[in-house]
Amino acid sequence: MNKLDSKIIRPTLLLDKQKCMTNIEAMMARAQRANARLRPHFKTHQSAEVGNWFKEKGVENIAVSSMDMAEYFANHGWKDITVAIPVNVREIDLINDLASKIQLNLVVESREAILFLESELKHPVGIFIKVDTGYHRCGLPSEAIGSFRILIDLMKETEMMNCRGFLAHSGHNYNAKDQNDIHKNHSKTLLDLNELKDVFRKEIPNIEVSLGDTPACSISEEFYGIDELRPGNFVFYDIMQYVLGSCEENEIAVAMACPVIARNIDRNELVIHGGGVHFSKEFIEADDEGTKLFGSLVRITENGWSEILGGGFLASISQEHGIIRCSDDLFDQFTIGDLIGILPVHSCMTVNLMKDYLTTEGNWITTMNSKQ
Amino acid sequence: MNKLDSKIIRPTLLLDKQKCMTNIEAMMARAQRANARLRPHFKTHQSAEVGNWFKEKGVENIAVSSMDMAEYFANHGWKDITVAIPVNVREIDLINDLASKIQLNLVVESREAILFLESELKHPVGIFIKVDTGYHRCGLPSEAIGSFRILIDLMKETEMMNCRGFLAHSGHNYNAKDQNDIHKNHSKTLLDLNELKDVFRKEIPNIEVSLGDTPACSISEEFYGIDELRPGNFVFYDIMQYVLGSCEENEIAVAMACPVIARNIDRNELVIHGGGVHFSKEFIEADDEGTKLFGSLVRITENGWSEILGGGFLASISQEHGIIRCSDDLFDQFTIGDLIGILPVHSCMTVNLMKDYLTTEGNWITTMNSKQ
Repeated sequence: MNKLDSKIIRPTLLLDKQKCMTNIEAMMARAQRANARLRPHFKTHQSAEVGNWFKEKGVENIAVSSMDMAEYFANHGWKDITVAIPVNVREIDLINDLASKIQLNLVVESREAILFLESELKHPVGIFIKVDTGYHRCGLPSEAIGSFRILIDLMKETEMMNCRGFLAHSGHNYNAKDQNDIHKNHSKTLLDLNELKDVFRKEIPNIEVSLGDTPACSISEEFYGIDELRPGNFVFYDIMQYVLGSCEENEIAVAMACPVIARNIDRNELVIHGGGVHFSKEFIEADDEGTKLFGSLVRITENGWSEILGGGFLASISQEHGIIRCSDDLFDQFTIGDLIGILPVHSCMTVNLMKDYLTTEGNWITTMNSKQ
Repeated sequence: MNKLDSKIIRPTLLLDKQKCMTNIEAMMARAQRANARLRPHFKTHQSAEVGNWFKEKGVENIAVSSMDMAEYFANHGWKDITVAIPVNVREIDLINDLASKIQLNLVVESREAILFLESELKHPVGIFIKVDTGYHRCGLPSEAIGSFRILIDLMKETEMMNCRGFLAHSGHNYNAKDQNDIHKNHSKTLLDLNELKDVFRKEIPNIEVSLGDTPACSISEEFYGIDELRPGNFVFYDIMQYVLGSCEENEIAVAMACPVIARNIDRNELVIHGGGVHFSKEFIEADDEGTKLFGSLVRITENGWSEILGGGFLASISQEHGIIRCSDDLFDQFTIGDLIGILPVHSCMTVNLMKDYLTTEGNWITTMNSKQ
């Protein structure tokens, strides 16, 4: 048994710190070239320790996807946090608590939320208005100038709400057919956000536009008029990003090590302990027939993992089991008790389920979901 | 605000204890009518307290899906536990520890696993051989008599391995087109398992056959030759089971309460805080066009929830957001900050992510994943 192998008893999420640091440095350099602030989205790693790796590189501002997560990172020393989801007004007590301690930034897109905050906020917060750039999940469409004006005017009347500008997430880039598609979406997004910025430049002092999605932030070098980049997934990447062209294979910084628990020679299938409670059930379609792929295979090595192994893939998962469909050759290489590494389809969901990481150097790292 | 509503700040998994008790009683009665032992699968609820509700009704034997889960329930007083997944030989230390304390039953399907256990077991365990009844995930096909004989003969030589019989899970019933399909699968399963039992009746003293899947256990009254029923999901049920016909709508015992965080009047969409980190990303196809449904809607009431609301459904989810597509009428009934209840597509995955329950009586219940 090699060094890593001997530490692994059950499905274990491996983290390659060196790849991770390289990913952080690359995105910081990209933001610098674009004259934009990097405000990494910490929903991907959810870990104070991984957060410190960003801090070492000079990052001071972060985004999170829930108030819980904002509280966790505020407790770990972060002083400027944007909660990048329309505000849940039921969390007003925690909002007021955090707003008394740090620079808290919230996202709104409705009169109701603003009126509620106006009456309940006890400490100042920064406010970004959500813009829909084509994902159609939430936000106001960029051309709805009248609607934006109503919200901005409302905020002028308030004491505790400091309107900072606009925030967008081009989530439709995750469904892009190819890089061309991403470039096309991104160009339109830049145009729309710049027009919006121009319209309200005089009304919002120090107006800012914050944009974040890993595909566009990884592929494009063009961020004219964008003040802040807010990608998250880039810290680890995953098979979905690899297929989109956002990263190289060797930039994927997490892999799940799973023990082989059964082998079916008639079907050339290896069964691993590793299922929906480890990976989530996200998949990509691997071909035009809609073949589902839940992860790609690697070999666990002494201090990390190999390149992707041809001839097999994680083809289905249930709650605890995973089925690897493979070639004769690959099938013969693995027996009961061996480990197989799986590069996950979606690292954010996998991390959220796994709660802890084992670094390829052999150290355990916790997240906000760890039991401890 | 009503009683429940005022306790809910963020996405919260509600549990109706009364429905749950009724589900437990119904499945116990069904097992009794079939002259079979009920060994409920606790992977669905993962909670010592919910486990106690079974204990109150006289249940003494349980199944789990991982050694971790076996350890948790052993620590909560359970003395006879089957780990219903092919054994992960890397967990031998925990296996030996639990085998020294309780009646631990393991599942095998290969010579390699048996040879490993023979050399490493320090305390006696029960062994079930996995049979593939058509799901094709793992197990030996029931007609592979020679392969079963090899494993059974191997175990005869061992001191610590007590071969108990056969274990099967007709997971293909989850993909059934209708109840007829389930009945057809189930009849074949009964035939195959009884033939297998007959062949090995003389060689395995007190031979047992254990069968478990919620659809067949909920729909059929025919369990000839089956010694043990091992369903799990029935304790809560969910939309997937409702669509399969395993349960009535009012037998679904869990619902997620989610705050409305945005509304889009152009698309008639309500955005909730409630996404993949709460529900997982499982869906069913709601129609022939493949429309994805991630959950059905209910109204949160003073002490539970309403019938399913027509005119809307949870149509898509990302990490933290959920999009509800709805009629004009339904759209107008919900504003920012209101709660909407969602009956989950797959309760096992939802529970695993949520970690804690709030009962409709207003009490918090923990699981093995709770932070405490």
